[in-house]
Amino acid sequence: MYDGIVQELIDELGRLPGIGPKSAQRIAFHILQTESFDVRRLAELLNDIRDKVHFCAICGNVTEHETCSICRNPRRSPATICVVEEAKDVVAIERTREFSGLYHVLGGAISPIDGIGPDQLRIKQLLGRLADGVVTEVIIATDPNLEGEATATYLTRLLVQPNLRISRLASGLPVGGDLEYADEVTLGRAFEGRRTVDH
Amino acid sequence: MYDGIVQELIDELGRLPGIGPKSAQRIAFHILQTESFDVRRLAELLNDIRDKVHFCAICGNVTEHETCSICRNPRRSPATICVVEEAKDVVAIERTREFSGLYHVLGGAISPIDGIGPDQLRIKQLLGRLADGVVTEVIIATDPNLEGEATATYLTRLLVQPNLRISRLASGLPVGGDLEYADEVTLGRAFEGRRTVDH
Repeated sequence: MYDGIVQELIDELGRLPGIGPKSAQRIAFHILQTESFDVRRLAELLNDIRDKVHFCAICGNVTEHETCSICRNPRRSPATICVVEEAKDVVAIERTREFSGLYHVLGGAISPIDGIGPDQLRIKQLLGRLADGVVTEVIIATDPNLEGEATATYLTRLLVQPNLRISRLASGLPVGGDLEYADEVTLGRAFEGRRTVDH
Repeated sequence: MYDGIVQELIDELGRLPGIGPKSAQRIAFHILQTESFDVRRLAELLNDIRDKVHFCAICGNVTEHETCSICRNPRRSPATICVVEEAKDVVAIERTREFSGLYHVLGGAISPIDGIGPDQLRIKQLLGRLADGVVTEVIIATDPNLEGEATATYLTRLLVQPNLRISRLASGLPVGGDLEYADEVTLGRAFEGRRTVDH
């Protein structure tokens, strides 16, 4: 145990995901001893992040504005919406440069164990975006795991309507993992090989 | 790439030791989305840490006061000083409950490659503490690696004087590692089995 606030900082850092007690200690001493590390800037960002960052009113992506930079971009095709679980997945897909449509971030996946049902996800907002008939294809890009598959199946049944293609990313993504950890090539191929869902 | 300050936070977190881009992203989203995580407290601690924490005027350990809680404790034996490289090592040794003397934190180890010589370490202060003859044993507990061994050898030669026992932690510590990562049992046994250095 350290005296006072050194231990408090170690404890607080240890609450972050993926940071164990040894890493927390190492980071605390790095912050304490490394003159070049801009600790004020990090503190300022932490203070600002929850106030300044919110979710895009259209797609649910993270943004500092009313709507995100993708929804505001007139060069993105409004006819295709790619549905993902998290904002992290938007970044992963953007990195492939395979997709020029818009996104819809659900904010998670259906998971009865965690008490997350369709009502906790931004599904109503997705239906609203499909109402005017501009969108001709919905690509469901949920994570290739149990919850993601369940969510995809649920959405497929819910969204079926004439003149709307519903597709899924091609298998090829490693099953059981998180979409955000797929490498660019794998994710790009999965995009190209997406298949229409039979319904 | 994320918009604005989300990316800035990810970049800033990525500058911390042991945090790669994926971990930084995961932590940023955790901070952004987890209501229960006290982001203000972490920001406050980061702002305070460099102002409030300094080094004990006697031993060089970290403290928020003039001297550290170990130096101020009248139940610690003033006859034995354990010399370590870093404040982290004090915490590791305290955990073994094998040692009831005082510490001296050098602030590193002799390392010509990194440009650290004896003058950059708190060696003069150590000699000062030995001047009045109260201390009868100095236990050298530098890391069991090249720099730590060199520092121990240097100190042994420097400190030799009548009525002063100079000892080293017993081998048993894994060579090539950092003292702070040793488990309590190994470190405790190394303490018990410390050997007097022939000089």
